[in-house]
Amino acid sequence: MAKDFSTRAENYAQWYNDLVIKADLAENSAVRGCMVIKPYGYAIWEKMQAALDKMFKDTGHSNAYFPLFIPKSFLSKEADHVEGFAKECAVVTHYRLKNADDGKGIVVDEDAKLEEELIIRPTSETIIWDTYRNWIQSYRDLPLLINQWANVVRWEMRTRLFLRTAEFLWQEGHTAHSTKEEAIEETLKILDIYADFAEKWMAVPVLKGLKSANERFAGAVDTYCIEALMQDGKALQAGTSHFLGQNFAKAFDVKFLSKDNQLEYVWATSWGVSTRLMGALIMAHSDDNGLVLPPKLAPIQVVIVPIYKNYGQLNEISIKANEIKNSLIAKGISVKYDDRDTQKPGWKFSEYEFKGVPVRLAIGPRDLENGTVEVARRDTLEKEIYQITDIENKVIHLLDQIQVNLYHKAYAFREENTYRVDTWDDFKVQIEKGGFILAHWDGTSETELKIKDETKATIRTIPLDNKQEVGFCVYSGRPSKERVVFAKAY
Amino acid sequence: MAKDFSTRAENYAQWYNDLVIKADLAENSAVRGCMVIKPYGYAIWEKMQAALDKMFKDTGHSNAYFPLFIPKSFLSKEADHVEGFAKECAVVTHYRLKNADDGKGIVVDEDAKLEEELIIRPTSETIIWDTYRNWIQSYRDLPLLINQWANVVRWEMRTRLFLRTAEFLWQEGHTAHSTKEEAIEETLKILDIYADFAEKWMAVPVLKGLKSANERFAGAVDTYCIEALMQDGKALQAGTSHFLGQNFAKAFDVKFLSKDNQLEYVWATSWGVSTRLMGALIMAHSDDNGLVLPPKLAPIQVVIVPIYKNYGQLNEISIKANEIKNSLIAKGISVKYDDRDTQKPGWKFSEYEFKGVPVRLAIGPRDLENGTVEVARRDTLEKEIYQITDIENKVIHLLDQIQVNLYHKAYAFREENTYRVDTWDDFKVQIEKGGFILAHWDGTSETELKIKDETKATIRTIPLDNKQEVGFCVYSGRPSKERVVFAKAY
Repeated sequence: MAKDFSTRAENYAQWYNDLVIKADLAENSAVRGCMVIKPYGYAIWEKMQAALDKMFKDTGHSNAYFPLFIPKSFLSKEADHVEGFAKECAVVTHYRLKNADDGKGIVVDEDAKLEEELIIRPTSETIIWDTYRNWIQSYRDLPLLINQWANVVRWEMRTRLFLRTAEFLWQEGHTAHSTKEEAIEETLKILDIYADFAEKWMAVPVLKGLKSANERFAGAVDTYCIEALMQDGKALQAGTSHFLGQNFAKAFDVKFLSKDNQLEYVWATSWGVSTRLMGALIMAHSDDNGLVLPPKLAPIQVVIVPIYKNYGQLNEISIKANEIKNSLIAKGISVKYDDRDTQKPGWKFSEYEFKGVPVRLAIGPRDLENGTVEVARRDTLEKEIYQITDIENKVIHLLDQIQVNLYHKAYAFREENTYRVDTWDDFKVQIEKGGFILAHWDGTSETELKIKDETKATIRTIPLDNKQEVGFCVYSGRPSKERVVFAKAY
Repeated sequence: MAKDFSTRAENYAQWYNDLVIKADLAENSAVRGCMVIKPYGYAIWEKMQAALDKMFKDTGHSNAYFPLFIPKSFLSKEADHVEGFAKECAVVTHYRLKNADDGKGIVVDEDAKLEEELIIRPTSETIIWDTYRNWIQSYRDLPLLINQWANVVRWEMRTRLFLRTAEFLWQEGHTAHSTKEEAIEETLKILDIYADFAEKWMAVPVLKGLKSANERFAGAVDTYCIEALMQDGKALQAGTSHFLGQNFAKAFDVKFLSKDNQLEYVWATSWGVSTRLMGALIMAHSDDNGLVLPPKLAPIQVVIVPIYKNYGQLNEISIKANEIKNSLIAKGISVKYDDRDTQKPGWKFSEYEFKGVPVRLAIGPRDLENGTVEVARRDTLEKEIYQITDIENKVIHLLDQIQVNLYHKAYAFREENTYRVDTWDDFKVQIEKGGFILAHWDGTSETELKIKDETKATIRTIPLDNKQEVGFCVYSGRPSKERVVFAKAY
């Protein structure tokens, strides 16, 4: 299976694409820029959704659903917002097809033209804030803490599976508050949830911080983000949480009666993570043998493979294997026992290795005699013989170890690939090698754009807990009070 | 809250609409025909999704995700299919907006016209079978048992919240098989799952059966359905399961190498239920006091309301109420303790009654003295005093009773409103009164359409376990071997 599979060193981009396709995670569809998420990939996404959804609900958020379509006029109401999204909108103009007059196929029925075109949502602030106007009258209606799981469309010209697709799946939270402070608190609370999810579930360490003005969400006052470093030294924005101020409340005239009986504009946040997280997950941990999945998000956490020479042996092994399987399932572990007789054990070993299954148990006739099982872990590729006694707790312990190890490995990688750079020459050299560059910046968009023009590097984030120190902008030489994080990014 | 709320007798359609809106289930959006599903309504839909998703997975199905867009040419490939859907398609023709030349707002950028128009999926057979062509080579790749949870768009002219909306949420299963028999077996297996879900979760009794040719899905060989009877005597199709034969395999050239080494076309099924189920759920059980929800799908199963004269009493009651709450939560019951001091108990009682919460517990100072609690059930509106001892098991028992009672009530209603009719005069009279009419039919589409023209009644289903009996068509007088189910329908 892994035969025609690029290594990371050969061609990182090709390695990623091969991995996504050959591990049955996703593939390109017949529709330009749109992907098909295959069952194995979707199972990982469902695990992500379940974990995030619980975190949102545990912090008081409810799910709802808003229309796929946004009237064109809504987009124009927030000036920055339309500027940011107009160039990549899928536009619905008609609502009917008909048979062609020449009898050849079907055509758009020009009599069924919409009075106002509809945009497929690239994000839902406008339709949601138009709705909130009717939901919010008084401070008693606030806060409004709503999330939706949905598909969105941004007509990207260059697409890559999971990382950048015309249609993608995501969640978008949209909250409404009576005070600025509370809205900012919400923005940061969600940022913490995203960071926790990335680190504890995906085993991907992230930097939490603010975006510079250039990288801000179209319509936001402040955009916060979590940024991860991939194995090729490029950064990946894994989630954003926006403090929207009163921008959308003003655009859609959403006011509330305060406790002091004053009519005030509502304060807003929005925040989202998408199927792009799948890209981060795949790139952060996987290796030249295939996918490496953290146990908490692996659809199959443990696979059991029987090693046998005849059906008599298989039957005996199956009894033991099913005992183990059931004891693991009872502990909430997802297990597959692969007793197919159409494939050899070696083929199965590389198949599950390639698919990133965290733990593999192999049982042969000698194991039956000795009461043992061979345990292989995907992250280190190490094998060990375990006594079967109490196997379920040993496996749970191992899965925990793997989860932690993946995080530590990714964390160490990031540390090794984070550089403090103080001169422009060093900057230009280092940025080509990849990694996070911590450098002083004079705080102007002008400088940021010049740096981007010359190196393709952008400011990924201004870390939240950033150390304040006197320095000079790596590009302009002007004074600076803190280092920011530069990198080339996905 | 329920003040300006129509009764069923006054205006059933208005009662339904009032209920949906005032119980915070859904509302119309700014986009014609599209609804906003509000948090309380979405919470019910999530419970439906979770139950169905588990049933699909327990029977070997996996989830995946296919594109929102379908190239126009795909629709034309299956002749009946395009005929069925072309007239209600939302069509994407452009992929960019721009600032208007006159500086007034934004307009569609005519330079960004798609070469081939894209249809927003009304259902996904075409894009999925185009994909399956690459997934299926040999009998070893079969069966392919895939489901997707998605939004679809059908441009309906007359829409009603949940029952018929331009955009709706649904699941659509698409399976591929090596034999006709296996595909039919799958079609019927899913029909059983749908019926089980309707009866055991929604507490809505359904008839399982076949659709007549007129009512068949566009592209199917056979369409099976579950049909429910609403309180106004109209039928509601609650789910369909289609045996597609080799129609889509032929349209998209999907062949497999059989065990006998022959290239054969693949056999297919598709099946779906949608947010329309919400409409069935609401209409089947609710009454003039508001929503009535079966416990298994109620977002809040039990509400606890304190009755107090001062904060001292509230504090004491809260200790006991929280004890009860926690003991119920420990049993997996969803409980809300409403200790808001901004509303009176009477207001809360009618609020939760209106929202359909199955069980209400009220605790006052005397209850504290006596170790009792007042228990009110939503289905019968009966109240009873319970000793608090072992309250969690008593409540579980009561919830079970309510679930069963709702089903029995709905079943009895259906039985009372099912009529055997043998003459055309009786048919015309009875169909105006509503209900299921069991009548003989000569089996021709011609007769079925004439009956529809004259009475608006359609054949809802030909029941699966239909008794064979000699008779004469109620309309044409021609011989018939079984009765079929007629009704006016949603």
